[in-house]
Amino acid sequence: MTGFADAARNGLSPADLEAVLREVGAQRYHNLHPLHHQMTSGALNRGQLQAWALNRYCYQAVIPRKDATILARAEDPTFRAEWRKRIEDHDGPTGWDGGIARWVKLAAGLGLDEASVKAERLALPATRFAVGAYLSFCGNRSLLEAVASSLTELFSPLIIAERVPAMLARYDYVTPDILSYFQPRPVQAARDSDFALAYVMKHADTAEKQQAVIDALVFKCDILWAMLDALDHAYGQPGHIPPGAFDPEAV
Amino acid sequence: MTGFADAARNGLSPADLEAVLREVGAQRYHNLHPLHHQMTSGALNRGQLQAWALNRYCYQAVIPRKDATILARAEDPTFRAEWRKRIEDHDGPTGWDGGIARWVKLAAGLGLDEASVKAERLALPATRFAVGAYLSFCGNRSLLEAVASSLTELFSPLIIAERVPAMLARYDYVTPDILSYFQPRPVQAARDSDFALAYVMKHADTAEKQQAVIDALVFKCDILWAMLDALDHAYGQPGHIPPGAFDPEAV
Repeated sequence: MTGFADAARNGLSPADLEAVLREVGAQRYHNLHPLHHQMTSGALNRGQLQAWALNRYCYQAVIPRKDATILARAEDPTFRAEWRKRIEDHDGPTGWDGGIARWVKLAAGLGLDEASVKAERLALPATRFAVGAYLSFCGNRSLLEAVASSLTELFSPLIIAERVPAMLARYDYVTPDILSYFQPRPVQAARDSDFALAYVMKHADTAEKQQAVIDALVFKCDILWAMLDALDHAYGQPGHIPPGAFDPEAV
Repeated sequence: MTGFADAARNGLSPADLEAVLREVGAQRYHNLHPLHHQMTSGALNRGQLQAWALNRYCYQAVIPRKDATILARAEDPTFRAEWRKRIEDHDGPTGWDGGIARWVKLAAGLGLDEASVKAERLALPATRFAVGAYLSFCGNRSLLEAVASSLTELFSPLIIAERVPAMLARYDYVTPDILSYFQPRPVQAARDSDFALAYVMKHADTAEKQQAVIDALVFKCDILWAMLDALDHAYGQPGHIPPGAFDPEAV
């Protein structure tokens, strides 16, 4: 296990800091999680895909609030003008015609009830705790750390490029229309992570701040990983669904 | 699955409210979790017990901060004088001679390094997210809900009475001295939960508030359950330990 706990101990050049951040992704992004491999290999059943979509909705739904938390802490209008694009992407012009709405379409396309998905009551508690930790982090840590925690977007085009073709190929009930959420995401993610990475490079100007941004990205990878762990545990074997959570058999 | 989402819809008598709260415990307290049964039946190996102690430390360590959060929100000196006993129990006269110190002794008695336990770096991210959710809940929800979330103490004498004799009987390296944390807990928990229950009964004087206290207790049961789910997933099968977390094989 390579650790990142003192990766910036002696201070890093910008190139080395970026290399460490990319190495965090190479070692800890959730494209390495067994559940992702099961998904792309066609090994999940419909109930497991439903559980994934239903739980991931909680994450999608909190993203604009996370970004608004960051916006509220940013004193630079130029920064805010750039960062608010993220909120527009997810909420759309009217609130229900952006990324969140497209995620609801994905969940509904897999056979879930829209109202039930939006209510979030059937999500795993562990999902809510992870998503809540992300929101708290962006409000309680420094603005630099909050921005750095978004850098998982550096790696998301990779996982989307694996996930979408595999889901279309392996699950006959998955259509391009159901997966429309992902269509604009690689371009949006590249724009957003370019901006966030440049911000981090400019502002992480001490060894301590460099370590803080590395830790923030590790934390965010832990969030995504823990969400898949919780799904894997609850829906990977019979008898593991926690009390009150979504039960595919009960639908 | 019996739900509690609208248990107080029409308002409950005090006796019925208490009955619903006790039913929440009967259905959702973590003495029902498979991992608890594995522990009391002697089925866990030393690494699994170590992982349990190491992760549960994060919960123990946050309890006085959770109680101080409640203390900080309480305007009644009589309430505060009662509630601060909880902090004294866990911190002891000097900080390291109360319940937290006894939990460190338990962890060390199972072969863990004390400093590593206290540092919390090897705990599962899911444990940290659950514990963080509990702390946030007690700061962000109403004082009544924060108090109600402590009512799992109503059920803790039960789980301790199962856990302690079973651990002494089933694991030859577990001694009464290692388990000294639990010795005063049933009396403390009964005192604390009597007080909290009386407070809840007095202040949950509308159907809406009754529902809020029921939801708060369900939430707290979810926290404890999710902590055992995370342990069960990470240490129940090979290959499931998330990146960076405690690995018994690596000690």
